[in-house]
Parts: sequence; C-alpha cells; structure tokens
Amino acid sequence: MTRIATVQTDTGPLYGAVTDAGFVALSPDFPQWPTLREVIEADALNQVADAAQGRAPTHMVSEFRYLPPIPAPEKIICVGVNFPDRNAEYKDGSDQPKYMSLFPRFPRSFTGHDRPLIRPPENHTLDYEGEVAIVIGKGGRRIAAGDAYDHIAALTLANEGTIRDWVRHAKFNVTQGKNWDNSGALGPWLVPFTDAAQLDDARIVTRVNGEVRQDDTLNRMMFPIREEIAYISTFTTLVPGDIIITGTPTGAGARFDPPRYLKPGDVVEVTVDGIGTLRNTVEDEA
Amino acid sequence: MTRIATVQTDTGPLYGAVTDAGFVALSPDFPQWPTLREVIEADALNQVADAAQGRAPTHMVSEFRYLPPIPAPEKIICVGVNFPDRNAEYKDGSDQPKYMSLFPRFPRSFTGHDRPLIRPPENHTLDYEGEVAIVIGKGGRRIAAGDAYDHIAALTLANEGTIRDWVRHAKFNVTQGKNWDNSGALGPWLVPFTDAAQLDDARIVTRVNGEVRQDDTLNRMMFPIREEIAYISTFTTLVPGDIIITGTPTGAGARFDPPRYLKPGDVVEVTVDGIGTLRNTVEDEA
Repeated sequence: MTRIATVQTDTGPLYGAVTDAGFVALSPDFPQWPTLREVIEADALNQVADAAQGRAPTHMVSEFRYLPPIPAPEKIICVGVNFPDRNAEYKDGSDQPKYMSLFPRFPRSFTGHDRPLIRPPENHTLDYEGEVAIVIGKGGRRIAAGDAYDHIAALTLANEGTIRDWVRHAKFNVTQGKNWDNSGALGPWLVPFTDAAQLDDARIVTRVNGEVRQDDTLNRMMFPIREEIAYISTFTTLVPGDIIITGTPTGAGARFDPPRYLKPGDVVEVTVDGIGTLRNTVEDEA
Repeated sequence: MTRIATVQTDTGPLYGAVTDAGFVALSPDFPQWPTLREVIEADALNQVADAAQGRAPTHMVSEFRYLPPIPAPEKIICVGVNFPDRNAEYKDGSDQPKYMSLFPRFPRSFTGHDRPLIRPPENHTLDYEGEVAIVIGKGGRRIAAGDAYDHIAALTLANEGTIRDWVRHAKFNVTQGKNWDNSGALGPWLVPFTDAAQLDDARIVTRVNGEVRQDDTLNRMMFPIREEIAYISTFTTLVPGDIIITGTPTGAGARFDPPRYLKPGDVVEVTVDGIGTLRNTVEDEA
C-alpha cells in the first residue's frame, strides 16, 4: 500500500513515503512542488510514490513526527449527522433530512498522527469522531454525482475531535465547538484513490483505549460521498487539495449516559482497512 | 485617508495605494512581502502606505480592477445575528443569546469592489448584508477583550452576500448559504486602524439602487468587536491577515414582506465614513 505523508523533521517539514522501516523523504527531489497540495494539483501523487521504489529510509521512526498530510488546504469541509442512527440520536422526531449539514474546520484545528489531541482548560468535553476524509484531485464546480469519484485523488482518516459543550453555544452553527486548536487529527498519510471499492466497501472502527466505540460501514451513509461532492461543488469550486470529511457513525462519547469524554492519557484509534490507523493520545493543554 | 488595495492588472495582481487619480503600485518595491497578508504580518502597512507619498499613479482607473484586499487569509470568520432587532426578527422568543453565532466563509465566496455579485441559476434568493470587517495584525490566542483593539491592523467593508434559501437547507449550520462563489464582496481597500473611534463611532449604511436598507451604528452590537476577538481567540489562534466580519444590522432583503432579493442590474453600496463605500453590481451567472 502506497503511503505518502507530510512530516516534521529537524530540518523542517518534508513529504515522502512511509515504509515499514521509516520515512523516505521525497520532497527534496521535487522542488517544483513544495507541499502535497502542489503534488496533487500537478496530478503527480503516483509519480512521487514511484520515486520511493527501492529507496532506503532517510529518517528512522524516532527522527520525524507526523503532520496533517496537506498542511494548508484551501478548504476543509465536514459533513455532519450522516449516519441514520445519528440523526435519530437528536430525538427531534425529524426524518432523514433533505440536505446534508456542512461546516468548515480550519487547518489548525487538526494535528497529525501520533500527536496529542489537546484538551483545553476552558472545557473538558473533548470528544472523538472517526471519519474517512477524501482529498480532491481534479477540481471543479457542479460536479455530477456520477463523475464525483474522478475528482478524488487520495484518502486519509480524520478524528474530527470536538469540544462538545461549545457546539451548541450559539443559536446556529457548530463553528466554535469544532475549531479548537489541535482538537482533532488528520492522517496518518494519503493513500491514492484508485478503486471505488476503497470507499464503497470501507468499514470504519474507532477505539478508545482499545474498546470499540464506533463501528460502521460507509455504504450506510445517508448522503454518500458521491452526493457530498456533487452538493458541495454546487455552491463552491472545489480545488486540488481540498478535504471533505465525510461523516461519523454513532458512538461518540457524548451519546453515552453519562457521557464518556476523552481525558489525558486516553488513546484514540480510527481504523479503515486499506487506509490505515490514525492514532492519537490526549493531553491537557500545557 | 490611507487606502491600500489589492488589484488585478494586465501583469497580474498588485497591491498599492488608491489615490483620487488612480492606483500607485507598491508591491514591486516590496518583493519580500508578496501580498498584503505578509505586509501585515511584518507590521509594515504604514511603511507601505508611506512609500506612496508624492508618487504619480502607475495605473489609471480603467487599467485595474479591485480584488479582495487580502487574497488568501488563513481564516474568514463571520459573526451572525449581532444586532438586537435581528435577534428579535427570528421570532423564537429568545432573549439575547449568551454566546455569539459564528460561521466561516471561504475566500472564493467574495469578489472585490466594483465587481458583480453573482446570482446562481440554482436559486435566486441572493441577499445583501453590509458589515464592517476587521483585519487582524498581531496574532494571538486568548486575547483579553481589553487588549483586543491592539490586535487590529486595518478595517475594510464586507457585503456578506447570501443565498438565503440555502442558509436553512440543513438542520444546523449556514455554510451552504454563505459560501457561493462570488456571492459577497470585500473591500474596497484597507484603512489602517489607528483610533478606537474608527469603530466605536462608526455608522454603517447599506443602499440598494440608492435606497437605504440598513442604517445602524456599531455601538449597538450585542457582541462588541472587542468581545468577538476575545471569544474567537479562545478556541483558535488568530494570525495576521485573518478577517472577522463583525455582524450586519436589520434590513436585509429577506426581512421584507414580500422579500426583496437582489436581481441583475441592482447596485448595492455599503458605506462607513472613514472607511469608504463598497459598491457592487449584480449579475446572473454566465
């Protein structure tokens, strides 16, 4: 499986391939593309991946730490309440909604794989949401659902970490519960999207300290990923490197009675076979 | 009054000073700062403005068109329902909310001064919202309200144009009504923020085809700008060039009975003395 990551090193951020032995830096070979956003814009993800063939690691595991794969995407758009049981959880008697709920997150609300999610001193209702994230390759406006998969360059995972109490601070909009610095994570890496089955047959499992909390299949989404791309691109032009975080299954900590929020020392793992496992610890803000 | 703009020219985008005679390109003098975002990051807005002293225009009015002043800010955050009568307009019996409503907009949802707002074929409920926008200078996290004005580098105006029907598509979040490409405008230019009175005494007037539709003073905001900066920076680090769009008074087209939405040929003007007038026409999407 091809795994292309962005990492922080002693000499600054680099992108490259992750192998069992470590990290193979590739960005020095491609100065024309400073980040994976430009690689994707050039439709060169496979070219970059091929350059790793037969190369020894440039960095051992102890010599780098993961960053979100695309450091500065133009847009990160999240789809809310996209599994049928989650809609029922709101207990407002509503049927399946006609349109999907969407909210943006800023890049700085995400950390990388194997980094701590930060619980702020203001509020301790830090919660997890495991999700598949797609990365747009070919941009476009008013993309037809039937063509939508042609616009996906790569897949990654998201822990769409949330300060639950702040989601409902305001009359509308979840912005301030969804955008705490380093409250969520993206990664570990990009896996090129080459086959519809990577999404259509995907099962997503979220574990906290090894205990399964979320376990569902993407084919149960109320708004499938093809429709997400079609609907979002109706109003905004999608561009290479844009990220859509596609929706989380039931089982977030807020839905337990009493709620089971994350606390320092917890380990959250989001797993999709064929993409990988996004693992994060939890720390109180220093 | 110092007016620093970003414009499109035959040779590409430039920033510089707007005078009565035209536009004085200044970005060629400051290659270390490619856009006004980097100028603000370097705390050099006054230095750039001073460089225009005594210079003849490099571009006549016919030789440039306005772009949003900061082409790619890290974040654009809008404050919703921030005047008391607007809260009452929702007729849900709610008192003044405890927390402000916030939603992000993507840069591509804004065009520049004197450019057309685009009415899409999917929906014709294009509406105006005149607002003051502040541009963050010195970044920070958990900025105290009392210090907030020290973090503002400049002011500009926003027409926070909205496809009204799409604001309530979803159960939560106004994202898809607020992010249509070129549905709003930012500009015309940046005016350096040097005196609290520029905000505290400001009156904002929005006209459609010359008729006053919105007319209010910023001192009536439920959440003053100082509190906006304090609250937002609680959860996210504000960085130089970030834009906060501070809230619109009553009188948007949706509040009339029947509603008075924008149509092709209309001219919308948002005016604040000491900042200027942001003027936009309306066109159907080509």
